[in-house]
Amino acid sequence: MEYFSEEAAMGGHPRVKIVVDAMGGDFAPANEVKGAIEALRESNNAFGVILVGREELIRKHMADQKVQDLSLSVIHADDVITMEDSPTAAVKQKKGSSLAVGITIHKEGKADAFVSAGNTGAVLSAATLILGRIKGVSRPTIGAFFPSETGVCLLLDAGTNVDCRPQHLYEFAVMGSIYARKIFKYENAAVGLLNVGEEETKGNEIVKETFKLLKASSLNFHGNVEGRDILKGKVQVVVCDGFVGNAILKFGESVPSFLKAKLTAYAEKSFVQKSLLGLVRGALRDVLKEMDYEEYGGVPVLGVNGVTIIGHGKSTPKAIKNMILKAAEVADTHLNRHIEEALAGGGSQRVLANDTITLPAHP
Amino acid sequence: MEYFSEEAAMGGHPRVKIVVDAMGGDFAPANEVKGAIEALRESNNAFGVILVGREELIRKHMADQKVQDLSLSVIHADDVITMEDSPTAAVKQKKGSSLAVGITIHKEGKADAFVSAGNTGAVLSAATLILGRIKGVSRPTIGAFFPSETGVCLLLDAGTNVDCRPQHLYEFAVMGSIYARKIFKYENAAVGLLNVGEEETKGNEIVKETFKLLKASSLNFHGNVEGRDILKGKVQVVVCDGFVGNAILKFGESVPSFLKAKLTAYAEKSFVQKSLLGLVRGALRDVLKEMDYEEYGGVPVLGVNGVTIIGHGKSTPKAIKNMILKAAEVADTHLNRHIEEALAGGGSQRVLANDTITLPAHP
Repeated sequence: MEYFSEEAAMGGHPRVKIVVDAMGGDFAPANEVKGAIEALRESNNAFGVILVGREELIRKHMADQKVQDLSLSVIHADDVITMEDSPTAAVKQKKGSSLAVGITIHKEGKADAFVSAGNTGAVLSAATLILGRIKGVSRPTIGAFFPSETGVCLLLDAGTNVDCRPQHLYEFAVMGSIYARKIFKYENAAVGLLNVGEEETKGNEIVKETFKLLKASSLNFHGNVEGRDILKGKVQVVVCDGFVGNAILKFGESVPSFLKAKLTAYAEKSFVQKSLLGLVRGALRDVLKEMDYEEYGGVPVLGVNGVTIIGHGKSTPKAIKNMILKAAEVADTHLNRHIEEALAGGGSQRVLANDTITLPAHP
Repeated sequence: MEYFSEEAAMGGHPRVKIVVDAMGGDFAPANEVKGAIEALRESNNAFGVILVGREELIRKHMADQKVQDLSLSVIHADDVITMEDSPTAAVKQKKGSSLAVGITIHKEGKADAFVSAGNTGAVLSAATLILGRIKGVSRPTIGAFFPSETGVCLLLDAGTNVDCRPQHLYEFAVMGSIYARKIFKYENAAVGLLNVGEEETKGNEIVKETFKLLKASSLNFHGNVEGRDILKGKVQVVVCDGFVGNAILKFGESVPSFLKAKLTAYAEKSFVQKSLLGLVRGALRDVLKEMDYEEYGGVPVLGVNGVTIIGHGKSTPKAIKNMILKAAEVADTHLNRHIEEALAGGGSQRVLANDTITLPAHP
């Protein structure tokens, strides 16, 4: 992988450094400490990890682990932003929180990426306020990954922007296709616009306007797609507003436990032998694992000047490990430079179907 | 079941009559004819069925079946509305279509319900234009049924109204809870408002306003629900605009084929024996059958002066049979009288959280 820098391979100081919000998740700092250690072991110290949070507590969790050989350090931060905190207010008021301190370390160039399993809204706020937006980006966005019959599908926005204008959706499409190309190696990622039907005349006014913007762009636009095309893998990037995206994401997340419950009820009323049921469950579990978005190593905040990866509050050590590995990979791809090139300046000036209009850069 | 009228049981003429659009589905009239025959056999002629469409063709499909003992008749209609036709235009132009003729028979009181597996938009248009709206209903709606861990969840709107005002969503909630009570026997059906979070402050302006309307109503309102709560069965009725509802419906419909594809790929790369894979597939098929909305016997158009049941274009004879049985059941419940009582007059005048406002009856 790209983050195994030559320097690191030669035993020198790691080039890339990842800041981890050690107080973020529901099981912090236990899972954060374990995940960081696993990431460094698996990558053979290819990068450095800085755990930010209550030092005494973090060190207590490190105490029973062998960490002397790892490129792992701790920076103290007194405060913690909880899941109950109001995102923007918390970021402004709790400047000494692990979240604010961690992102500031990244902002100051002392680290190359930031990872948190904390309050999603607060992470987005902190990333936007502290790191700032990439030139040409109206609204940073958080996407969600879905497994598909053909690979992976990136759906964005997944809940951070409930009301979107056509320009926002266009920018999501640009950022999403750059992410799909750089991280998932889809050289010419196909973009679909979520709608209630495939015909160009379908949907509400916002979607119809977005269709025109996408059609006139240089993106590999495949037109309107429907809810069924996500898992089918018709395209690699699907854009929609955060209200719709969030509903689909959460519906999808509920499928595994629904199937588990139904399978149990089915076994009880049928004559399936217990041992066979175990087999069915096992196969299903392996298949459904793909629907668990923690496997993808968290989701990136796209559109901010930096690399920020957000994970589920319930992140396991394995999920944290994957997030750190993903952050190191993203930090090495110059993703943001590509986004800025695509959107800054001419990015918001596009030819529509029948005439030329100039949309405001930051509506 | 309620549609087994005494009269029919005594061998007299069936009380309830169901009109079937024999030219509606992708496999019309073959599946429509078969489904009608199956419905009459299963119910022991408890109601009558009128097949509407190209008589010669319909009779050809009836020729090789024993139908002399069935309360089945045919009414000729020359024209057919296809899936490609523009809904409203087709209904206005093709007055001789099986759809328009069939609904008109219902409108004239010569039948008690109408069933079609044809163009959904056209069926909705025809039902609205020919039957008219129930007093107090701004917009008729079509819902979708989801199996849940606790029973069934009715989601509406499922795609017919992509832009909705709070008043529309409120009316969907009223109609949905009456349907859940009358047809699914949920005496005090819980209603949830689909949102990106449970807190009252979440979502866009339309959702926030709808929350107030629902909170002030006499419905059993359980507040905001998220995408995951549909399959979880937290409530029996979920309201959202048709854009979101359609995306979730279609996403849900794609889950079975996604799992089938993944399971096949899983078996190929693992060492699961072929016979065991068959078992896994069988169990999964039985469980997933619940996610197939045809099992519920189609979906009703709610808010029109009549009983109209719509099915999937790909409806099998079994699906058509279930739609006819459902139509007969709905025709016997006086659903619309309950909807009118709940919405006409005072239905659109409600107390909001802080003050009293009067919303227009038909915004």
